[in-house]
Amino acid sequence: MGPSASESRSAAENGVEESNPPEIVISVLNTPAPPPLGHELAWSIREGIFPRRNKSSSLFRHVISVFCGLFPVLSWGKEYNGKTFRSDLMAGLTLASLGIPQSIGYANLAKLDPQYGLYTSVVPPLIYAVMGSSREIAIGPVAVVSLLLSSMLQKLADPQVDPVSYRKLVFTSTFFAGIFQAAFGLFRLGFLVDFLSHAVIVGFMGGAAIVISLQQLKGLLGIAHFTTKTDVVSVIEAVWNAFHQHWHPENFYLGCSFLVFLLITRFIGRRNNKLFWLPAIAPLISVILSTLLVFMTRADKHGVITIQHIKGGLNPSSAKQLQFTGQYAAECAKVGLICAIIALTEAVAVGRSFASIRGYHLDGNKEMVAMGFMNIAGSLSSCYLATGSFSRTAVNYSAGCKTAVSNIVMAITVFAALELLTRLLYYTPIAILASIILSSLLGLIDIGEAYAIWEVDKVDFLACLGAFFGILFGSVEIGLLIAVAISFSRIILNLIRPQIEMLGRIQGTDIFCSIKQYPMANQESGLLILRMDSSFLYFVNANMIKERIAKYCVKEGQDEIEENPKERIQSVVIDMSNVKNIDTTGIAALEELHKKLDTLGIQLVMANPGWLLIHKMKLASFVDLIGEKWIFLTVGEAVEACLNAHKDNGNNG
Amino acid sequence: MGPSASESRSAAENGVEESNPPEIVISVLNTPAPPPLGHELAWSIREGIFPRRNKSSSLFRHVISVFCGLFPVLSWGKEYNGKTFRSDLMAGLTLASLGIPQSIGYANLAKLDPQYGLYTSVVPPLIYAVMGSSREIAIGPVAVVSLLLSSMLQKLADPQVDPVSYRKLVFTSTFFAGIFQAAFGLFRLGFLVDFLSHAVIVGFMGGAAIVISLQQLKGLLGIAHFTTKTDVVSVIEAVWNAFHQHWHPENFYLGCSFLVFLLITRFIGRRNNKLFWLPAIAPLISVILSTLLVFMTRADKHGVITIQHIKGGLNPSSAKQLQFTGQYAAECAKVGLICAIIALTEAVAVGRSFASIRGYHLDGNKEMVAMGFMNIAGSLSSCYLATGSFSRTAVNYSAGCKTAVSNIVMAITVFAALELLTRLLYYTPIAILASIILSSLLGLIDIGEAYAIWEVDKVDFLACLGAFFGILFGSVEIGLLIAVAISFSRIILNLIRPQIEMLGRIQGTDIFCSIKQYPMANQESGLLILRMDSSFLYFVNANMIKERIAKYCVKEGQDEIEENPKERIQSVVIDMSNVKNIDTTGIAALEELHKKLDTLGIQLVMANPGWLLIHKMKLASFVDLIGEKWIFLTVGEAVEACLNAHKDNGNNG
Repeated sequence: MGPSASESRSAAENGVEESNPPEIVISVLNTPAPPPLGHELAWSIREGIFPRRNKSSSLFRHVISVFCGLFPVLSWGKEYNGKTFRSDLMAGLTLASLGIPQSIGYANLAKLDPQYGLYTSVVPPLIYAVMGSSREIAIGPVAVVSLLLSSMLQKLADPQVDPVSYRKLVFTSTFFAGIFQAAFGLFRLGFLVDFLSHAVIVGFMGGAAIVISLQQLKGLLGIAHFTTKTDVVSVIEAVWNAFHQHWHPENFYLGCSFLVFLLITRFIGRRNNKLFWLPAIAPLISVILSTLLVFMTRADKHGVITIQHIKGGLNPSSAKQLQFTGQYAAECAKVGLICAIIALTEAVAVGRSFASIRGYHLDGNKEMVAMGFMNIAGSLSSCYLATGSFSRTAVNYSAGCKTAVSNIVMAITVFAALELLTRLLYYTPIAILASIILSSLLGLIDIGEAYAIWEVDKVDFLACLGAFFGILFGSVEIGLLIAVAISFSRIILNLIRPQIEMLGRIQGTDIFCSIKQYPMANQESGLLILRMDSSFLYFVNANMIKERIAKYCVKEGQDEIEENPKERIQSVVIDMSNVKNIDTTGIAALEELHKKLDTLGIQLVMANPGWLLIHKMKLASFVDLIGEKWIFLTVGEAVEACLNAHKDNGNNG
Repeated sequence: MGPSASESRSAAENGVEESNPPEIVISVLNTPAPPPLGHELAWSIREGIFPRRNKSSSLFRHVISVFCGLFPVLSWGKEYNGKTFRSDLMAGLTLASLGIPQSIGYANLAKLDPQYGLYTSVVPPLIYAVMGSSREIAIGPVAVVSLLLSSMLQKLADPQVDPVSYRKLVFTSTFFAGIFQAAFGLFRLGFLVDFLSHAVIVGFMGGAAIVISLQQLKGLLGIAHFTTKTDVVSVIEAVWNAFHQHWHPENFYLGCSFLVFLLITRFIGRRNNKLFWLPAIAPLISVILSTLLVFMTRADKHGVITIQHIKGGLNPSSAKQLQFTGQYAAECAKVGLICAIIALTEAVAVGRSFASIRGYHLDGNKEMVAMGFMNIAGSLSSCYLATGSFSRTAVNYSAGCKTAVSNIVMAITVFAALELLTRLLYYTPIAILASIILSSLLGLIDIGEAYAIWEVDKVDFLACLGAFFGILFGSVEIGLLIAVAISFSRIILNLIRPQIEMLGRIQGTDIFCSIKQYPMANQESGLLILRMDSSFLYFVNANMIKERIAKYCVKEGQDEIEENPKERIQSVVIDMSNVKNIDTTGIAALEELHKKLDTLGIQLVMANPGWLLIHKMKLASFVDLIGEKWIFLTVGEAVEACLNAHKDNGNNG
């Protein structure tokens, strides 16, 4: 039925081929209408906030599935048996042996009494065990969040002068953090966690690790008067002053020798995976040995600072200590928000990386709900902000945990320790806690990753450096602010200054590529093919794009005229395939562009405009303005039509 | 040399065709390296901030061209002659006849004494004439900016109680506005003006026109005690109260009769373009007639409120009235910033629309520098914020102006009026000024445009409505804030939730289109072709995109298995042509996606990744991870390779 190859070729040469394009024009312009009024926004909101419901399931089943989603224990609890429990028991006990000294150390970092760190290792893990969906994550206090809380809250109340007010602020901030975390999960705002990019987190963690190490100098050197600031300059100044006054070298010798012991066990554990339990129980061994040492030598009378009294027993209620009125409520909400995001970032990163090792999917939003509820419960039972700890999760995984029951075992063990063993910690030296924290910080500094970021993306590296130095020389908030500002500045630049790429044809094909990227691509004579590299043409970038295209046409046109006056630009083909949406400013910019090109005698041609674009251009009668026959499905068709038109003009002229 | 068609076909069938793809793979992956370290950002900044210098010109010529750019009078002044001056003289005089009554009226709206409006029509137009590049724009006070200044500044100082302090605030805000405008121009931040989209301006102008009209009720009704708030509710309440106390209907009759006269002349001018001068001089005629009327009937003794004393003479210096210290300096800077943006938006819109009628290009950044310097000079010589007025520019254009000399003529005429005629304005009734402002406001309300926005883009219309009702029932700032928030919320939603489109092949071609947009496109069996609709894969959207693609694969995979178990998805081709840049989080997301798909037994294939993408994927060894042979230039090639691989698998399996 169709014409033979030679026939169609001769038809093309005679310019009769124009009988074909209209068919394609119809298919481009007669696409289905996009969704009606408000749907555009409503869809985004629905997609964003409400979980999707499977249409085929009944309401009852939907409720059940939501319920099971909230309490994953209902799913995995059914298949739980003795064998898995044996694994979880071993993992939980290993976890507790690492968790008890770390919790006391982190409480010290958070400027709270030691028992609050232990409390935080009891209630939140229990709540998480029934609500969380990660099987490996170990819940409890972590270094960075402890530092964050103390560095931001001690500006409001001095923990040494007025510990009661300070504790109230801590619990209130924890409560707010829990509310924010639960809200993020329930309203599916998980993407907020993504606003701290990978690079920023690397920089942030590195900076935080150094700041935390510096804070440990207080315990390690036995300094009585330390600064409340966290930046490097203030801390070094404080240490320098302490050296010139009086300090107790016994603390330092004790701390350093155990630090060396901890680092060696860590090194051995790294080298031999079967000995993973060695670094895991080393902190407990250090605590026991050093406590015995101090007790036997009565070194606490000779300058070694010890923990002394820890209040034992069950977590007391702290519901009455939450303050929602008064001058600091808003400040606590702010601290809560920052801590909530940092804590979630760490927990989601930890959870996801271990979930991907085990090969299951972790729903970020559900995790946030679980974290939120566990922190709300924590804030009511004298706990401060808990999250997933990277080092303890790794130990939990290595120890062979199977389900969140290992968290329950750990919580019960810590609770038992609170009931029975707190009196034994009277002689534990603070320097040991400092060395335990120091040894656990090494994992936070990831120079290799920072180098990889530098290699791949310089802007990301800049954000990473911004976070690092911001924390080091400013404060946690300044570091985060700088890093987020750097990360977003590139996005904003991309938004308001999208690139326009010049395309060329790859010889002998219908493939059109950027001539910058593929130097072998050839420009057609008398024709400019441009591609807009933006996914929308809105008020923020429409004028910029219009002016760039106009400048291209004028510049290229002039060059051409100088070199070869006959080869002046007659048409501009704009590849719109990237542009998905347009607003009225965008359409006005296209109209102005068309007018401008018209005065220069250049035909504006469009290739592959998207769904919404076609619809809106039709509504705004822009299609009639440039002419239906100048809108094509592909760049190839557009170019062919232009070349034919040029030939006709040439013949007529 | 090449194989015949039948040979190549048989080769393809035998799966031997794999000797071809490597060639294309090389051309995809061996693109030139992108610009070195920091270039990416540096380029954006240079493009953004510093004007480009033509490499071929010497430094001296560059300086000269920058100088000529700053003072366009140097370019057009050389060719100025008597004939063009005659045109400009006529245009300038027409402009002055409209400008004098309008300036007095707008000064009244800005809560300043009448002479300040006249001052503002003297200095800024003179400066603009030597620095500006628009030939038609008429400089002076305008309604919206006058309203903005008074509505924001009278919260700080009451113009009736303490006019001296109020004036100081006005001059300081004008100075700041000038500084901001000049800075925007010098640092090429002109895009900031684009942040108020076309739709927002339509809504804003409509709302402002109604608010200004309501403010005129004070003059029109002769109300002594009026509200200082601008929202509809407060104003109607104030008018209602005034009605119940005492008001002077003489003002109303006088104002209304002249308003009818002005509207009739406006209507005639619209109908007959040759009579454009009639609405242009009608305000002056109204002022003269009404002044004579009041003078002869001594109506000022019977309740008609008149201007009374106007201080004549040259603009006094106001340099000493600028306040850069004290409690309100920061507030003045804020007011200055808002006014600067609104004034620039109006001026650039006016200038551009008339430049495009005359067919020349107006450089927005240079215009901003000129506007900035003219307002800085104005603030030092008792002027308040001046900008391009739409109504007077139209008159200037209709009156046949050729260059900015018409602005000079107008300024000299206004200056002469200040020297000679101010005493004659003693008996001019305030109601006439109100009717002159009212008659000029009609042009600001553009219902047709609002309807067009509604038709084309609902979100834009929402922003337009937000601005309109925000100004009407809140304040100018609230209106702008609502409108900008609505406009940006869509951009942010687009950023963090880009769409993933499923592509299909159009029968018999190598064209792949969205199957939503083109229902005739067919999906290939066992193959999912997806396109990312985002111009970057950064931390804000990378995880979202990864999860969406993974969900697509699982969902589509399940559906397929249920319907036809043999047709399970074996490969996912991702069309990356839209994605221009990627950061480390984006690469990590791709790696995770690859891993996830790998566990599902799905091959990840990429088509047409951009320049930077290839470079960074190589650096991060992602290319090695998915395999060089799975990256293609076009979707067509990728699909063919996948289908061949599936066939091989089928044969082997």
